[in-house]
Order: sequence, then C-alpha cells, then structure tokens
Amino acid sequence: MTKLKWGMIGGGEGSQIGPAHRLGAGLDGLFELTAGALDADAKKGRAYARRLEIAPDRAYGDWREMLAGESAREDRIDLVTVATPNSTHFEITRAFLEQGFDVLCEKPMTMTVEEGEEIVALAEKSGRICAVNYGYSGYPLVRHMRAMVARGDLGQVRLVKAEFAHGFHADAADADNPRVRWRYDPAQAGVSAVMADCGIHALHMACFVTGQEVTSLSADFASCIERRTLEDDGMVSFRMTGGAVGRLWTSAVAVGRMHGLNIQVFGEKGGLRWAQEWPNQLYWTPLNETTRTLERGGPGLSPEADRASRVTIGHAEGMPLAFANIYADLAEVITARKEGRAPDPAATHTPRAIDGLNSMAAVYAAVESAGNGSRWTEVRPPSRR
Amino acid sequence: MTKLKWGMIGGGEGSQIGPAHRLGAGLDGLFELTAGALDADAKKGRAYARRLEIAPDRAYGDWREMLAGESAREDRIDLVTVATPNSTHFEITRAFLEQGFDVLCEKPMTMTVEEGEEIVALAEKSGRICAVNYGYSGYPLVRHMRAMVARGDLGQVRLVKAEFAHGFHADAADADNPRVRWRYDPAQAGVSAVMADCGIHALHMACFVTGQEVTSLSADFASCIERRTLEDDGMVSFRMTGGAVGRLWTSAVAVGRMHGLNIQVFGEKGGLRWAQEWPNQLYWTPLNETTRTLERGGPGLSPEADRASRVTIGHAEGMPLAFANIYADLAEVITARKEGRAPDPAATHTPRAIDGLNSMAAVYAAVESAGNGSRWTEVRPPSRR
Amino acid sequence: MTKLKWGMIGGGEGSQIGPAHRLGAGLDGLFELTAGALDADAKKGRAYARRLEIAPDRAYGDWREMLAGESAREDRIDLVTVATPNSTHFEITRAFLEQGFDVLCEKPMTMTVEEGEEIVALAEKSGRICAVNYGYSGYPLVRHMRAMVARGDLGQVRLVKAEFAHGFHADAADADNPRVRWRYDPAQAGVSAVMADCGIHALHMACFVTGQEVTSLSADFASCIERRTLEDDGMVSFRMTGGAVGRLWTSAVAVGRMHGLNIQVFGEKGGLRWAQEWPNQLYWTPLNETTRTLERGGPGLSPEADRASRVTIGHAEGMPLAFANIYADLAEVITARKEGRAPDPAATHTPRAIDGLNSMAAVYAAVESAGNGSRWTEVRPPSRR
Amino acid sequence: MTKLKWGMIGGGEGSQIGPAHRLGAGLDGLFELTAGALDADAKKGRAYARRLEIAPDRAYGDWREMLAGESAREDRIDLVTVATPNSTHFEITRAFLEQGFDVLCEKPMTMTVEEGEEIVALAEKSGRICAVNYGYSGYPLVRHMRAMVARGDLGQVRLVKAEFAHGFHADAADADNPRVRWRYDPAQAGVSAVMADCGIHALHMACFVTGQEVTSLSADFASCIERRTLEDDGMVSFRMTGGAVGRLWTSAVAVGRMHGLNIQVFGEKGGLRWAQEWPNQLYWTPLNETTRTLERGGPGLSPEADRASRVTIGHAEGMPLAFANIYADLAEVITARKEGRAPDPAATHTPRAIDGLNSMAAVYAAVESAGNGSRWTEVRPPSRR
Repeated sequence: MTKLKWGMIGGGEGSQIGPAHRLGAGLDGLFELTAGALDADAKKGRAYARRLEIAPDRAYGDWREMLAGESAREDRIDLVTVATPNSTHFEITRAFLEQGFDVLCEKPMTMTVEEGEEIVALAEKSGRICAVNYGYSGYPLVRHMRAMVARGDLGQVRLVKAEFAHGFHADAADADNPRVRWRYDPAQAGVSAVMADCGIHALHMACFVTGQEVTSLSADFASCIERRTLEDDGMVSFRMTGGAVGRLWTSAVAVGRMHGLNIQVFGEKGGLRWAQEWPNQLYWTPLNETTRTLERGGPGLSPEADRASRVTIGHAEGMPLAFANIYADLAEVITARKEGRAPDPAATHTPRAIDGLNSMAAVYAAVESAGNGSRWTEVRPPSRR
Repeated sequence: MTKLKWGMIGGGEGSQIGPAHRLGAGLDGLFELTAGALDADAKKGRAYARRLEIAPDRAYGDWREMLAGESAREDRIDLVTVATPNSTHFEITRAFLEQGFDVLCEKPMTMTVEEGEEIVALAEKSGRICAVNYGYSGYPLVRHMRAMVARGDLGQVRLVKAEFAHGFHADAADADNPRVRWRYDPAQAGVSAVMADCGIHALHMACFVTGQEVTSLSADFASCIERRTLEDDGMVSFRMTGGAVGRLWTSAVAVGRMHGLNIQVFGEKGGLRWAQEWPNQLYWTPLNETTRTLERGGPGLSPEADRASRVTIGHAEGMPLAFANIYADLAEVITARKEGRAPDPAATHTPRAIDGLNSMAAVYAAVESAGNGSRWTEVRPPSRR
Repeated sequence: MTKLKWGMIGGGEGSQIGPAHRLGAGLDGLFELTAGALDADAKKGRAYARRLEIAPDRAYGDWREMLAGESAREDRIDLVTVATPNSTHFEITRAFLEQGFDVLCEKPMTMTVEEGEEIVALAEKSGRICAVNYGYSGYPLVRHMRAMVARGDLGQVRLVKAEFAHGFHADAADADNPRVRWRYDPAQAGVSAVMADCGIHALHMACFVTGQEVTSLSADFASCIERRTLEDDGMVSFRMTGGAVGRLWTSAVAVGRMHGLNIQVFGEKGGLRWAQEWPNQLYWTPLNETTRTLERGGPGLSPEADRASRVTIGHAEGMPLAFANIYADLAEVITARKEGRAPDPAATHTPRAIDGLNSMAAVYAAVESAGNGSRWTEVRPPSRR
Repeated sequence: MTKLKWGMIGGGEGSQIGPAHRLGAGLDGLFELTAGALDADAKKGRAYARRLEIAPDRAYGDWREMLAGESAREDRIDLVTVATPNSTHFEITRAFLEQGFDVLCEKPMTMTVEEGEEIVALAEKSGRICAVNYGYSGYPLVRHMRAMVARGDLGQVRLVKAEFAHGFHADAADADNPRVRWRYDPAQAGVSAVMADCGIHALHMACFVTGQEVTSLSADFASCIERRTLEDDGMVSFRMTGGAVGRLWTSAVAVGRMHGLNIQVFGEKGGLRWAQEWPNQLYWTPLNETTRTLERGGPGLSPEADRASRVTIGHAEGMPLAFANIYADLAEVITARKEGRAPDPAATHTPRAIDGLNSMAAVYAAVESAGNGSRWTEVRPPSRR
C-alpha cells in the first residue's frame, strides 16, 4: 500500500478546483501530494505548496520548472494533474506526455480540435495515460448504466436525451460581474460558452453511457441576455456511431435548476433515467414492465458500479466520491502497469484523450452548425477523416 | 341553472374519447346530452344514443342528418362536440359553424394549414365559438402559469422548454399492431406521427402559457423503429412572437415515460416547472431566491386558477377535471352571450380556431424543416402572410 | 341505462361536501338527483332543490318530510346520501334504514359506539345497504393494495404505518376563528378532534387495505396550541385481528404538510407505499428485489383497480373520481339486486356500517387510552364482546 | 497546516466502520493516522497497521498496550477513535479519558446508563473531549435545521417527528444468518435491537435539531419475525425539555425502505422536512406561506451549514462528507485549544458524552415502557435525578 506520488499544476490558494482534486486524490489514501506548481505567482505557489507539506525541492515556481525537476528525478511523480486555466491545458499536457508522465487533465483538454488531435497521437505514441476529468463519469450508477448498455440489457440503443441546464447566469444585473462575464467573451472563453462549459458534460455522458460517439449534429444557440456574444442556451440534435439518435439541451438561464445534468437512454429492451443531483437512484424500465429503482450499493449491480461504491446502501454518496473514483481507477491502472499485471477491468473506464478530442470536435461542429442555420454538420476529428 | 343543450358527433360505443367528453361535459351539470350522431354506423349510433337517453328524434344517423335536424329546430343545441376521426374534423366543423352553431372540435382541428385558415375565417365571420380541445390547458396550474406570465411575474419570457415523450410505441414486436401501425402510416396519419399527435400538445402549451406564437423553427425527426415511415421521435427549436426561444422534445419510444408532458418557462425574473402527471404542484423560483411549491387550491393563486379548482388543497385533481374546465368555460361564455353580459374573464382562455391553425402550421413547418436538414423554416399561417 | 334515483339530505347552498357528492354521483351518469332536503332552513332548501332541477313535490323542507314523502311513493329513491352535521347522522340514517332505503352516510356514521352498534344491527336486519363515505378507499390504487394483500402478494401482513398529518390548524392567531375553533371544542366536536376528523381516515385505510380490524391500541394525544381542549396531534400504536402491528400518526399542526394521508404496508413477501396527494403511483417492493412503480391504469393490475380507473395511464385521476367510484359501486350493487343477479365482485368493497362502527370504537378507545397514560385499551365494539 | 496525530482502536481489516472513519478523518487532510490497535488479533492488527503506514512502534497489539505506549510519549496522539465492538466502548473510552486523551467513541457510547453517567463525569473532570459519533449530525442541512431552530425561525418548537425505518431484516429465511441474528439476541445486543441500533439515531437527531432533551416517553415494541426476542419495530411518543411533543418510528422490517432516517420539525412559525437519503435538500414552510426548497451550498444559509459544505450547489454531498465534518470540527476544537484561542463557534456542535448518555437513558426508558404496557416513563439519567 505504498502511496503513489502525485503532482499538481494549478489549483492554488483560493481556487475551487484545487481542493476538489486534493479531496478526490486523497480520499482513498492512494496518492500523496509530492510535487506542485500551484500558482501563476511562483512565490505564492511555493509557499502554498509548503503549507500542503510538499517538500521544498518539489515546490516549484512554474510548470516548466516542475517538468524539468521531476523529469530529472529517479523518484518522479506517478501522475500529474493539470488544473490550470483552460487555454494552457494543451501545452502543459503535451509537455508532460512527451516526457513520459501519466497525466490527468481538466476539461476541456484543449481549445481546438487540432490540438486535441495532437494530444491523442502523442498519448498513443508515448503509451502514457492521458485522462480527461469528466468527473461525473465517476458516479457508481453512471458506471452501471454504461455496463448495462455494454452487456446488452437495453438491446440496441435508439435514443439518448441529455441535459445540463442551470440558472446561475440568468441575472441580467449580474451579467457584468467579472466572474460571469468572461464566460461569454470569445476572447477569453473561446468559441462557445455554455455548450463548451456545461453541454460538453452532457454530451460526454451520452457517449460514455452508450459507448458511441457523435458523428453529426444540428445545433441552435441563443443568447438570452442582451450583450452576450456567446450562447447561454443551446439545443443539439445528433446521430451516433452505433445508430443512436441524440437530443441535448444545455442552458445557463434556466432559473430554478440547480445543476441540471441528467440523462435518459432508450433502447429496444428498456429505458434508463438518472440525474446528477440525486445520483444514488437509477430508474430502469424494462420494455413492457414496471419501472424499477436501482439503488447505489444495492445487490446485483455490475462490477463497475460495485467498484465505485464506498458506503452501504441508503447512504448518499456525492460528487466528491465520483471524483475520487477517477483517481482510484488511475491508481489501479498505474499500479497494475508497475506490477506487470492487467488492471481490474472495472477500473479502465476513465475518460481519455480521445474523449477530450471528440468532445471538442463536437463543440466546434455545434458552433459551426449554430452559425449556419442549424445545418447538419459532421463531427469528424482529424483522426477519423 | 337550466342546462345547456349539448350535441356530440362521434364518440360512439367503445371509443375512448367519447366517455371522456361526456364525463367532462357532465361533471358540473352544465350540459345535457341532447343530440348525437355517435357512430359511423347509423343504426348503432342511434341505438347507443337512445341508451344515453337522447330523445329518438335527436338520435341521428350521421352528422349531415344531425346538422339538418338541429338547424331546423327552435331549441337547437347550444354546443356541438366533434370527436370523429381526424380527417373529418374539418368538414364537420365547417358545416356546423356555417349554420351558426358553437363548436368544440377535437384536435387536430384540420389536416392542412389551408383548411385551418378557412375555419379561422369562418369562425370570425360567423361570430360563433370554434374551440379546439387542447384539454391540458384546462389544468388549474396551467391556467396559473399563463396568468403569472401575463401579469409579469416572470418579466420577459426568455426560454420555454416543453416535452411530451412517452414510451408506448417502443415495442418493435408490436409495431404491426393495427392500433399502433396506422399512426406511422402517412396514408392514414397525414404528414406527421408523434409530432402531430403529442408534440402538438407540448407546443400548444408553450404558446398557451407564454401568450406567444411560434414564428420559425428547426426540426429533427427520427424513426427509431425500422419500417416506420413517419417519425416516432422529434426535436424542435423555435422562436416566438415575443422573442422567447423554444425547445421541444417529443417521443413515442421513451420507454419508462408514462405520459411525459411537461413544461418549463424561464424569464427575466424567475422560472416555472410543471408536469402533467403530477398536476397539482407548480414549482416557482423567483430570480435569486429559493424554489417554492405552489399547490393547486392554495391561497393566493390567480382568479384563473381558482375558477378551475374544485376540491380543497391537498386533494389531487386530475385530467378529467381539466377537461371539465374546458366545458365549464364554454358554458360560461355561451350563457353570458345569451344573457347579454360579459363572461367571467377567467373563463375566456379556451383554445380557439386560431390555436388549432397555429399548431397545424407549426407541424407542417416542422415536417418541412426535418425534411430539409433541419433548415430554419418560417411558421406563417396564410393569415399572417 | 336508466339512471338510479338519488336523494340527498344536507349539502345545501354553500356547503363543501354537497357539490362533492353531486359531482361523484353524477360523474358516470348513473344517478339522477331526484329528491332532497338540502338545508336546515326549509325554504332555502326547497329553493335550492328547484335550482338543481328536483321536482317540486320532491323538494322537501326537512328529512322527516322527505322520509314520509319518499316512503309513500311507488318510485321512491334508490339511494339517499346523508351529508348533514355529524351529530345528526345517526338518527337520519336509522330512520331511512328502518323504512327500507339504501343509505350512504358521511363519516362519522355516529357520535357514539352504541349508536354505531344500533346501525349495524339495523342494516343487517333490514338487508339494506348502509355505506359510510370513507372516500379515499375509492382510489384505484388503494383498491389495488387491498387486492394485493387479499390475494397474498405480501404474504402475512406484519406491519401497517398510516398517517394523516396536515398543518392547517397550526396558526395560533387563527385558533379563535370559528371555522377552526369548533373542532377543538368538545361541546361541538365530541370526544376527539384531529383523531376523529383525520386519524380516522388513516385508521380506516389501514383496515381497508389489510382486511383486518383493530383489536387494541395505545394512544398519546397532544394539544400543541394553548387553550385547545381537544387534541391537535395524536399517535396510536395498535394490533389487528390478523396479527398485524399498526402505527398511526395524525396531526393538524404539521406546517407544510398539505393533506398528508399516506400508508405503508409491510408483509412477509414485500412492502407497499402510497400517498393520497400523488395517488396515481404505488410503490411495491417484493422482498429482496428492487422497488417497482405501479401506475394507475397500467397493465396487469387487479380487477378492483381496473374497475375504478377511467382514463388512460399517465393521466392523473384525482379525489373526485375516487368519490365517484364509491357511487359507481353502490349503483352496481343496487342494480344487481334489482336485476336479481350477483354484483361485480370488484364493486363490493364500499365501506359499510361495520366499518363506521369499528372506526368509532377505535376513536373512543384512543381517547380512553390517551386519558389513561397511553394504557393499552381493547377496541371491542359491543357486537364483538 | 501540521496534521493532527490520530489513533484508532478497532476498525481492522474487513470491518465496515474502519474505512469510514479513515475516510472521514483523512478527507480534509487534518489528521494523520499515527497509531493504532486495529484488531482483536494482535498480530493481524500490527500487520494491518503497517500496511496503513503506521510506524512499527505505534502499531499496537491491543488497546492497553496502545494506552501505555501513547501515554508515555511526548508526541502522543491528539485524538483516539474507539470503533471496537459495542460492549467494549465504555472501558476503552474511560481508560483513555483518564489518561487525558481526546476521544471520539462510536455509538452507543456505553451499554448502560450508569456507565454513561460515569463517562460524562469523567469527561467533565478531565476537560477532555469525549465525542460520540452520531455521524448524521454532520450533514450541512442538519446543522442548518439546528441553526434555524436556535435562532428562532420556527418560534417555539411544538412537535418533532423522526423515523429510522429500513427493511433489511425482513427476510424470515435470513433470520438465522449470524450477521442478522446477533442483533436480536439479548446476550449479544443488550436490552434492545432496532431501537438501540437505529431508533437512537432518529432520537438523537430530534434532540440535536431542537436543542431539547427527552424527559419522558411511552414506547411500543414488536417482534414481527418469529423467534426474535428483541424488537424489530418500535414506536415511541415522548415529551422534551422545551415542551416539544415527539413521535418516533423505527423499524427493520419495512421492506422497500432503504435507510429511512428522516425528520420533520414543526413550530409556531413554520415547519421543516429533511431525509437522509436525499440530504442536499431541506423543505421549509413558513406559517401560511408556500414551501421552499433550501439547497445545500445555496446562498443565505447559516454559518453552521456553510462550514459543513465543501462543493458547489447542485453537486450532491453524501454521508462520507457528513462524517468528515465530525472530524473537521474536532480538529478545529483541538487545534484552537492548542493555540489558546476560541474555536469557530460553528465547529462546536459535535455530539458529546452527555448526548451518548441521554440516548442510552432514552433507550432504557423505552425498553421499560414497552415492557410495561407502554406506560409513560421518565427519562432521567442519574445526573438529572
């Protein structure tokens, strides 16, 4: 039970995502925070690293220094998490992959499709893990949905309906709030706002659960609040590699919706419904039968769900444990490789670079379609052309 | 309290819609079933009419006979309900309007936009009521949503999300069942299946609640079960006369969804959520405040909701009472006219011919858009051109 | 399809229960309101009867006049409903039973156990129906629970948990409101307030569903608002004839609860949960399996549930239709007797005089127990001694 | 940010509660597992301790050895958790308190009231923390309910309704399963089964939220499965120090209930409802107003709730984080003492020895009452006599 050595880039004092990663990585005691370049301000980053009990020689001033330092060590870190501003994910991830590190990158993995393609190629070539943190895929019952589809419980999947609609950017008086405004400013947010920020999670979940990818789509974007350049609401219809039809709604102006990530999957033999806000119940309706409530932690679930469950049935597990499942699975895969054995198959479902690429390709296609009167647009990352 | 005289065309023995209308019309004791042409088989229709205690001279063999008979009487019926097969709605409704009868027509009011236009013009010219039975608009809390929007509680409406997604046509083995198959056969069902049958209700509700009409739309249709010519799943994005953005999903293959009609309305000042299956609660979130549960029958609702409520708070009211509200409102409007007074304003929200026309125009536009790669298509009934 | 002739005592202009009965009796067109003594004020009662289209010679000034008048007719009413103030139920019901009428009496059937005993004996002797309006027993899924227990789906019932807890008498400032105050005044309400008014429904439902009666109980009563002599909250533990253990909570100060009638039944082979406010779903958990949602109107329910369902699955049915089921069943039983045939067995579950007696015996026992430090008290109506 | 040194007794390999404590203590990185006597088998305990990276000289063979070892060190542990079988809690907790350690003891703190009294006195005398792990009190919205009551939002609390009813001991065929059977065997479980195991949590929550203690009670116990000596279902009515009336139901045979811990609190000015299985929503109904849904992590909650929240609104937090809140609060109190400052007042709500004593006194009173025909029984721990 020697802990794996873990490094972190970004997630400095005051960030929201930093504590979430430390909580997730630390929860099971599988990782020890060993190295870090935690802040854009080198001095502050080093000081914070020391307070997190990182040794002085591994409390780095920036990611380049960290890359050099860790690459030179015998006892280099086993995994590095990239939790910096979105526009830097690509170059940092690329640099660490090139030096043979395993990486967990925050979403979005890159800002463009071409960058995503490069990362995918590099990850393949290097043989290293490049995981992307679609954290909601860590929920036990999301794993179970994927397992049910994979083992054929639903028969062929016909239809997926996914949503991520919240209402926290609905106050016009708050639209100039800098914490909100940047998200709708192309100079800072890129080509898309709510689709790239929230819709992408719903889209990934549709892919994760069905095991299919998006091949083409038609999108409609709207800016419900004046003076917003980027969309705060979007609807996307799509088709998938296995023939499934997709429907996706994402919004930031849906007042009264708190988080609003949910998914419904309908196949030849039955239908599934799940919502992120109440993640411990999954509703399963076999064709022509009554709806059953599957409880996280209950008997008879799949190995994938069981592996991701920690406490007994009837006790809620929440988002931090979903996050921890991502880390636990990475630990298993890394450890198995070290030990020269195959990993637990139930631990191999972490989203990877290809998922990051596919997501970004879909976002770009949606932007293109929305700009072209909802014209159907192929989602063809360079690798598939 | 003299009852109004009510006539019915269609709704013969064994029909589903017939008893529903009789239940709705009879519930408050406002109408008496006085005349009827209840069956395509004249003999069976007359016999059934007698069993329903219709006098022999008003138990007609077909609607033409009934039109002639009732037109000739001094004590002619006050309202006629048209509940025949869809393709006959137009000519019967037209004929009765022309003779000066008030009509309640089942949806769809017509099979084409042009027919709809003709009915609208005729209804205007005749000064008679031509109501269309979008029965879900009769629910007290649907009325309340409309009232909240109208009185400005939400500020400007930005976004409407409406669904009508059920799973009762999802069994491929049942697809040849005649009771299912005709719905997907253009020769019998017309240009659209689930959109015209179910989506139209969601669309009407979006219009009813916001007080806006659809101006343009982009649609995607899918046939999830092989050999179906018409769509069993559809998604529509739209724009409305008051600037609202619309999202609509309709499906017949969503296994596990029972009825699946629900609506969410988001405005500058708050958001609303309501679902037909649990119609006695309405969720209202004022901007930046917590969500409140409004209960049917509770204090402080609008006159429109109060008028439509019958039993005390905490006792469920269901679909038959929504239906009865349509009849009660028609009774009020008819009686007020007879008495030369203005009707109760809360009774004047029954969907009319213009709503039937707008719905049909939107369905045709959706069919056109879906057939043209989801191209944005104007919804312009002849009257608005 | 000749309508049965129906008479009503009480339920005059402005009463709440009168319209509910007329709605329930009229809904299916099985009864025609033929006679009535509708108001304590003879003149007002006659005038109102005329407005309800009762013939002048059957618009009576009081119930004695009505009893005399109807008894003397060949075409006497087929059923009389007693919806007068509680303290008069006994003598009116007794008088009409003695003259051979079928009676539907509002709850409570009597004010004392002895009176209840007299009615039971009289109903038996006369061979007439004496039904008691525990209207919640008319819900389709309540009927289905009873059927599931009866046919053994649960195995032996071990435990019943029933509640009827609302919050509408929780405002201390409103305690002097005459519409509230009389309920807590022994001179007007009798020996019990919320137990006799609300708890009695929960208790009846426990008996109705399990097919068992209460044999002994321990009760605790509390008056949560000062100056109330009678209880506004009560808890009762009990034992039943078939060995089931019972738990019952009733309250009028549970702020935020709207109606609050619900029941859970647990047996050797599974458990059931149902709530009056969302009456179209029943939750059924077979032992060691997942919970299923049974929908009203769904396939595979019992004949008892099917008989009581009117509209298709996914459309809510509410309290007025439950009420109508009571009337529909009485119509079937009365008609079958007239026609010399056995009634539909699914129509024979209407609560009768024995249920009214048992309820009252349980209320008295609860009052006694609560006054004696929650001492276990036998519930032994005179007939069982 | 130096971690506190933490020791654990019990929670060896294969135990359920051990990992839960390690997860809770480790989650925020506030404690380091420094010492342990983890198993009844000394050799296995030491080996497991080593695998958990406890230093060899602090991997003890039993608690006495650990007590001696730690007492002798300068760098002794800051907190010891007692997670051994119930019957040993008392003597271990007593021994560590006597040596000046801060202790977190699993519930039940003791097996008898007299033992509880001794611990309370000892904790007071020693000035050490003796916390008892009523872990559900760590949920943010439970903290918020307590804060709302304390600051007067409900006015005087009139009524508390608490439940802990599950169905996992309902299978008669499983009753001989050793993992179930011991719970109903007085020789192993003590005087009570489901009341002491589950009901005690509901009872503690009623006390925690209202800030009141139970003064007297009337209980009814039942053994729904044959051959069980101890109760598998119980109902308790009670009165509290501040005048509140209490109702409590606990069960182990409620098939279909997963966990079933929930609470409702009703006061002069409003009512609250919360359920452990969906812990991120709290329903609050101000008197005469509509019900509001309070979301964990939402704006405007109390400092107590805010302190206990980790992730943003709309992301579920579950039981492990509630547990972690207990540890975080103990860390704050211990650290503040070390630093000679007052702790954050929001961190001072951890259940203590007096709560463990009061719970046990209530259980004994319930057993006595249930054995005496539900006679009202005073709950008077020795200290209050």
